[in-house]
Amino acid sequence: MNNFQFHNPTRIVFGEGTISRIGELTAHYGKSILLVYGGGSIKSTGLYDLVRKQLSASNVTVHELAGIEPNPRLTTVNKGIDICRTQGIEFILAVGGGSVIDAAKAIAAGALYDGDVWDFFTGKASIKQALPIGTVLTLAATGSEMNGNTVISHWEEKLKRGAGSSHLFPTFSILDPELTYTVPRNHTVYGSVDIMSHVFEQYFSLTENTPLQERFCESILQTVIENIEPALVNPNDKAARANLMWCGTMALNGGQISLGMVNDWASHGIEHEVSAIYDIPHGAGLAVIFPNWMKYVYKERVDRFAQYATRVWGIDAAGKTEDELALAGIEATRDFFTRIGAESTLADFGIGEEQLDRMAEEAVRYSAIGSFKTLEKNDVLEILRMSL
Amino acid sequence: MNNFQFHNPTRIVFGEGTISRIGELTAHYGKSILLVYGGGSIKSTGLYDLVRKQLSASNVTVHELAGIEPNPRLTTVNKGIDICRTQGIEFILAVGGGSVIDAAKAIAAGALYDGDVWDFFTGKASIKQALPIGTVLTLAATGSEMNGNTVISHWEEKLKRGAGSSHLFPTFSILDPELTYTVPRNHTVYGSVDIMSHVFEQYFSLTENTPLQERFCESILQTVIENIEPALVNPNDKAARANLMWCGTMALNGGQISLGMVNDWASHGIEHEVSAIYDIPHGAGLAVIFPNWMKYVYKERVDRFAQYATRVWGIDAAGKTEDELALAGIEATRDFFTRIGAESTLADFGIGEEQLDRMAEEAVRYSAIGSFKTLEKNDVLEILRMSL
Repeated sequence: MNNFQFHNPTRIVFGEGTISRIGELTAHYGKSILLVYGGGSIKSTGLYDLVRKQLSASNVTVHELAGIEPNPRLTTVNKGIDICRTQGIEFILAVGGGSVIDAAKAIAAGALYDGDVWDFFTGKASIKQALPIGTVLTLAATGSEMNGNTVISHWEEKLKRGAGSSHLFPTFSILDPELTYTVPRNHTVYGSVDIMSHVFEQYFSLTENTPLQERFCESILQTVIENIEPALVNPNDKAARANLMWCGTMALNGGQISLGMVNDWASHGIEHEVSAIYDIPHGAGLAVIFPNWMKYVYKERVDRFAQYATRVWGIDAAGKTEDELALAGIEATRDFFTRIGAESTLADFGIGEEQLDRMAEEAVRYSAIGSFKTLEKNDVLEILRMSL
Repeated sequence: MNNFQFHNPTRIVFGEGTISRIGELTAHYGKSILLVYGGGSIKSTGLYDLVRKQLSASNVTVHELAGIEPNPRLTTVNKGIDICRTQGIEFILAVGGGSVIDAAKAIAAGALYDGDVWDFFTGKASIKQALPIGTVLTLAATGSEMNGNTVISHWEEKLKRGAGSSHLFPTFSILDPELTYTVPRNHTVYGSVDIMSHVFEQYFSLTENTPLQERFCESILQTVIENIEPALVNPNDKAARANLMWCGTMALNGGQISLGMVNDWASHGIEHEVSAIYDIPHGAGLAVIFPNWMKYVYKERVDRFAQYATRVWGIDAAGKTEDELALAGIEATRDFFTRIGAESTLADFGIGEEQLDRMAEEAVRYSAIGSFKTLEKNDVLEILRMSL
């Protein structure tokens, strides 16, 4: 276990009906707010009206930025920053999934920065302050509701980049599992893949002596695996939706499950290049890439992959070499993703070889990626080829 | 899973050598501080000198309250409150284990309260504000370093009571596993029993649909079980000490591992009555009482106890009824406590029947205790008798 520091100030308000607290919680932070949301599903579900009504009752003045894209774009973030500056916005309320929350975070940082907000994503500047934000989560996936990370796409340049800061932790997040009942089947699947991928990036680590952290990771993986199919069979399954939601938050709340471990994040880096160009859902891209990353890197630490196979998938070790066990665990991962309905190849999205070289090039633009196994351009290219 | 709210603002600074940050972290909160510590072991280990030197270098003016008892007493807390009031203390720094931290918390609350600080422990008043505190943890056990709870003894009245408030979360806690190398064997054992007991109080719950929470609990239990013996064999085992320390914090950091579950805490309540009168170490009392509590209540939910036996102790379910499995898990708990050197009966401390009735009476003074099984005076008396 390495040394670490941990501080997570986000207040979580979890459970059925907690949406009714949105007015009171928001009013505590500001009377002039920017409400950020996505493509309008919150209008068809009635959530929008509910939120607006609660905010009115708390005498909060609301400005709006609608239409956040599934891969939120810099141009949209800049629109939000303009509103914040011209309207004297004190607080940003994100109602949606990870894309909406990430956009809100970028707006919050950009609103208090004189330069171009993209500077934070290219490493040209670091975030020194941000407007406070709050979130109402509508998709179990991202963890963004309880961490300081944001990922934004520069659509014109086909770049997708992340930034992080302690100033970006939401002040509060409302997690009402009922709000996820209407999530379409495919996004329920992609969300769960995203959750599992967040855990993988932390769990497959070279850091020694982290037994509690490994078990926390395995706990989340097992719980997602148990709960995704019930949620697909019955989208209103209260228990399954609540478990998936809490797994998503715990999987990426400032790295708490893996404190003292070196994380990898190479698969996320590779996937970002795919969705930067092809605009596919993040979780869908991860389902394609992660099992191939696993196959490519598992020999770095066969023991961890063997442990994964036995503890998470319950694969019997008897009669198997450690290598066979490790491969069986990877196979189980791929089979599971396929069984729940995720795509397994880039071809499933009509993606061919054309841009592979560019994606590999961009993935290592600033440096080689990954820590479990350091990946240079050639390595990334190979993983992408395996994913075709 | 029930609705819940979670907010834990404590900053954790974990790892070897992190004690060197004490001056900088403290100076951020105050220039006039009260340093609270216990019986002087921090002087013999050199920790005291190190802390004073760091504080001096950061120009912090230090007042001291030494001699906090293993079961910290109200009279001592009141001495601390007097110092805070007369010396204009801005910040309290606790260097020690749970007792020292709990005393510091009580002082922090009492210093800003006009009435008697004991009011917070009898329910006569609730904590509305407190001086900020920081901690340097020297014993893996309590969780007090990352939660808002405190337990204090009124020695003259033979009462031991707890209080809690969001104002009592430490601003920061330094967790340097190296500081626990010098913990004597018996207190290493009692600390681990305390950690496991904190988990038991949360894990044995009637709340349905909490798979992630249960696994988090099991993760801590398994990790403590794996690491206690290495730490006993080699007190300087860096890995084991680090794992025990992190388990202790995660086991009771504002209830994070069991969010949405109803907790029990009856065994803690019963133990408090024992140590209020006989002044035995808290973890020692828990090792005696918990397995008896388990035997007394397990039929309320045999399935959870059977799960505990298989998942935590790896007991083979084949050929056993659920009841037999549950009892085997309880037996394994008792055997383990005995094997690591904890006492198994009250008689081991020279405690007989004399005060049993009084302890049972006091345990239910305000109401019946527990939620897994609600315990009236007769139930408590029976558990105490089983513990003789």
